[in-house]
Amino acid sequence: MKDRLAYSADNCSLMRTLEIVGERWTLLVLREALLGLRRFDDLQRALGCARNVLASRLTKLVERGILERAPYREPGSRACEEYRLTETGAELTTAVVALMRWGDRHVADRAGAPLALRHRGWGKAIRAQLACAVHGDVPPAEVEVRAGPGAKRVA
Amino acid sequence: MKDRLAYSADNCSLMRTLEIVGERWTLLVLREALLGLRRFDDLQRALGCARNVLASRLTKLVERGILERAPYREPGSRACEEYRLTETGAELTTAVVALMRWGDRHVADRAGAPLALRHRGWGKAIRAQLACAVHGDVPPAEVEVRAGPGAKRVA
Repeated sequence: MKDRLAYSADNCSLMRTLEIVGERWTLLVLREALLGLRRFDDLQRALGCARNVLASRLTKLVERGILERAPYREPGSRACEEYRLTETGAELTTAVVALMRWGDRHVADRAGAPLALRHRGWGKAIRAQLACAVHGDVPPAEVEVRAGPGAKRVA
Repeated sequence: MKDRLAYSADNCSLMRTLEIVGERWTLLVLREALLGLRRFDDLQRALGCARNVLASRLTKLVERGILERAPYREPGSRACEEYRLTETGAELTTAVVALMRWGDRHVADRAGAPLALRHRGWGKAIRAQLACAVHGDVPPAEVEVRAGPGAKRVA
């Protein structure tokens, strides 16, 4: 990007996203939600974090519209709440997969990736990639950054 | 994922990636590297963070092979070092773009995205997406997660 320093970073969308989900436990809660866990006790068991830490992360994710609470009741049990990904939350899947696949390539154990992501019904491996309307897999070196409509010049 | 709780989360690739880049300032340093800034003073000015915070994040990114130090010298100035993204570091572009574009959609100011990402030479907007070998834009709902080759059963 030419002239980067002429523009403010105060309204950066990456920074704002990180303010919402950029905390380690928050992204790990999202991982479990993407893996299909919905109940507090299951999430707590999978994550191994303190219950109060999990509760605070879940509350924040609900407040920000990434998860929603929904009632459920199993036969013979009392009614409880579970946490479901909203559409806004599901849109974070690409980011979570991109971070996870980078880890699979660079920091996984010799045995390989702990999780295999497949296209349901097709069986092909899923990856995260950059794309434009014409090209399906744009290399990072071909990304050009310019000031966008919401760019603010530094005074 | 069926039977999620039968597998350990201790070797999760997302968690390991976050241990390296999951700290707020670290991802913002990466943002500036992707935008083309290479010098300590430029990075510090763009980020507005404390110099010691920036120095520690840069050192960690160099140690982990995401940035590399390289000498540069401008005419009439003394030799300095700059920070360049390695190929491993550039592979994080998809994750950074995915997080940024989520923010553009959900938490940007009314004016719109501060940064516009274009395919160089083509001009088309860049997005991050999930893909398989056959399909170019797989919706999150079509991602199926299974135990991978490195999965570890909980004892």
